[in-house]
Amino acid sequence: MSEQTTDKRVREASRRHFLQAGAALAGGSAVAGLGGSGALAESGNNLPPNVPEWMKAPGAPMGSQPYGAPSTYEKGVIKNISKTLPQYISASGRTPLQDLDGIITPNGLFYERHHGGVPTIDPAEHRLMLHGMVDRPLVFTMDDIRRFPSQSRIHFLECSGNPVYTKPYGKTASDLVGLLSCAEWTGVPLKTVLNEAGLQAGAKWIVAEGADAAALTRSIPIEKCLDDAMLVYSQNGERLRPQQGYPLRLLVPGFEGNMNVKWLRRLKVVAEPVYSREETSKYTDPMPDGTAREFTFYMEAKSIITRPSGGQKLTAKGFQEITGIAWSGHGKIKRVEVSVDDGESWQDATLQEPVLTRALTRFRLPWHWDGTPAVIQSRAIDETGYVQPTLAELVAVRGVNSFYHNNAIWPWRIDANGEVSNAQA
Amino acid sequence: MSEQTTDKRVREASRRHFLQAGAALAGGSAVAGLGGSGALAESGNNLPPNVPEWMKAPGAPMGSQPYGAPSTYEKGVIKNISKTLPQYISASGRTPLQDLDGIITPNGLFYERHHGGVPTIDPAEHRLMLHGMVDRPLVFTMDDIRRFPSQSRIHFLECSGNPVYTKPYGKTASDLVGLLSCAEWTGVPLKTVLNEAGLQAGAKWIVAEGADAAALTRSIPIEKCLDDAMLVYSQNGERLRPQQGYPLRLLVPGFEGNMNVKWLRRLKVVAEPVYSREETSKYTDPMPDGTAREFTFYMEAKSIITRPSGGQKLTAKGFQEITGIAWSGHGKIKRVEVSVDDGESWQDATLQEPVLTRALTRFRLPWHWDGTPAVIQSRAIDETGYVQPTLAELVAVRGVNSFYHNNAIWPWRIDANGEVSNAQA
Repeated sequence: MSEQTTDKRVREASRRHFLQAGAALAGGSAVAGLGGSGALAESGNNLPPNVPEWMKAPGAPMGSQPYGAPSTYEKGVIKNISKTLPQYISASGRTPLQDLDGIITPNGLFYERHHGGVPTIDPAEHRLMLHGMVDRPLVFTMDDIRRFPSQSRIHFLECSGNPVYTKPYGKTASDLVGLLSCAEWTGVPLKTVLNEAGLQAGAKWIVAEGADAAALTRSIPIEKCLDDAMLVYSQNGERLRPQQGYPLRLLVPGFEGNMNVKWLRRLKVVAEPVYSREETSKYTDPMPDGTAREFTFYMEAKSIITRPSGGQKLTAKGFQEITGIAWSGHGKIKRVEVSVDDGESWQDATLQEPVLTRALTRFRLPWHWDGTPAVIQSRAIDETGYVQPTLAELVAVRGVNSFYHNNAIWPWRIDANGEVSNAQA
Repeated sequence: MSEQTTDKRVREASRRHFLQAGAALAGGSAVAGLGGSGALAESGNNLPPNVPEWMKAPGAPMGSQPYGAPSTYEKGVIKNISKTLPQYISASGRTPLQDLDGIITPNGLFYERHHGGVPTIDPAEHRLMLHGMVDRPLVFTMDDIRRFPSQSRIHFLECSGNPVYTKPYGKTASDLVGLLSCAEWTGVPLKTVLNEAGLQAGAKWIVAEGADAAALTRSIPIEKCLDDAMLVYSQNGERLRPQQGYPLRLLVPGFEGNMNVKWLRRLKVVAEPVYSREETSKYTDPMPDGTAREFTFYMEAKSIITRPSGGQKLTAKGFQEITGIAWSGHGKIKRVEVSVDDGESWQDATLQEPVLTRALTRFRLPWHWDGTPAVIQSRAIDETGYVQPTLAELVAVRGVNSFYHNNAIWPWRIDANGEVSNAQA
């Protein structure tokens, strides 16, 4: 749906709800006797037209935070670390999606998942080795990598186990799909570096190895390496965070998170995949017939409503914007449909422009909540025409033994008191 | 220039330089005897094929940083705070542009400028009053503001005094134009809120007031308020940082930074500008004939090469990517031209897509540095056709009494030893 159409729909919603419903919506409180005067009087509280405490004395001086931090009032907006899962050196921390706006995840809240703790790597000592079926095996310093022609692209990253198929299901958007973030990445197209070494005939896969204690290793098809894969050193302008692979990671946009190998130290060009631990005992999908899907690279189209979402509460009837995020490993999001009547009917949401390939896409739908219980949900359709399935549809095909690639629709229940909870929990 | 054209040019540069020049470029060091073997042997150092120290023991566990921070190896990448200017409560901190990639500025490094210190505002107590020439004066809580239909947009912000016209000029890109950053902002279109209050006939300006100790006040033309102005509560996904106006700021994309009033508490709709301190004694431009330009809202088209740039050093002859940023308050960047011969000739740089209106645009040009002294510079052309001027052209018209709106081209000198410095300093 175009932004023009939305403007029209918002105007209509405004005529119908903002004004006729009076103070029910966001319209704020009418101020008696202030039209055109604007005089600011003192009367003992912080509300306009009075002068709040924080205007009466100078604020904090410069220099106390040469690298800034959020307001102390936002101290609850942190990575969501499970209190029940073991959280030692094989750990995950989720992005608090329900507290965020837009599509960029700030670096401090980017999700993390690691298998041997987060290494502390001196970039001056870090090396990337490129060898195997190449004409010239090479070793690169970080300075070497940074001298290649660069690119910047906004892409999402998602863990393939996001969320699990079986109860207990999470209560919040972050509990369910918080192993998901999106950033502007800068680095070198991998194909540029491969061309420098010269691929030999028969080269079909590249084995990527991380410099962490788990030596995480994955096999990547050569087609992806020659397409949009990147060697990345920066996220959202600054250098990678340690949890995201400082000083160098592989980025394979749209592929499951663990294939975007962090702390990248080695690329070996080979003819066959290596069948590493992370592509045999882990990151394969047991099916109901006893077989297992392997090399399930692509993260399929998916979406989630982040506001209103589980754990939040609507405080008043009337206008309520429904907003969330959609993404697909196969390319651009084409459409997001939202239902506010437990799946009976669906409306097109507005997509925030620009819609970028393999990036989060923010969607929005103006809604009037009449104060009665409701179930709301979103489903994403990507540019291939693929439609995000229901959990029942997904389980019917995949069973519940798999841990990965659950891209089901996730509905939220809104109670009459405004409380929002997981409708499938 | 299209990305396809660049790919071609990079391939040509590669054929001519990466390979024929051997190790001169980024090609890294050839590894003898490793072709196809890939065996990792130990021999007492951290370089491949050896196992570095940080792979031999588990890394840092989860949970020590619920809100993340950069690597300790990046501790020098901080806001650039002048040691010579008074830095008390009327202060500025600059973004380290020469250390950043892409177009997004991470929130921890976003530039700041304030006139009465940074207030600590409780969002539950903050109010925005909208009054003056409106049908219904209104007071909004932050919850009210967040219930309106939202938008997210990527826009730059720049202080109008960036840089000064007279020596001493800064040594680095940050010294010169570091009062510049770019983020994805989320908030409410101001026109939506104005429509809620109902503008009266004759409403021509809106006076915006901040809730800081300076009560910073600016008059904004009503046309801008009804165009792309926003009430913003989030930057790069999370809530505004205190230094950027937490919990609410005005965003007037493309207008000088101080008009994007932070800690926004009051909007008064009026027929005439108020001629506040910040639009009379400050933020006006004294001209050579004794008059002063006032209400110089728009930040004109501008660009700067960030790599190589002042304070950096080229470590080897051969391939060198030239990259930088360009921006215009009037809309999209149409073209960036780069000269590597002290302005004798100019080449089109590649613009990173998507090119967004009133946002930073990253540009790049592949270059072969032959090891002799050179002067490099960039000039931006925006979609209106406006061309970024030289400092001499600008001073010829404006003189040197003005402090604001210096959007001159800024060349860098590269010495034979690779050291980069300000060519006009």
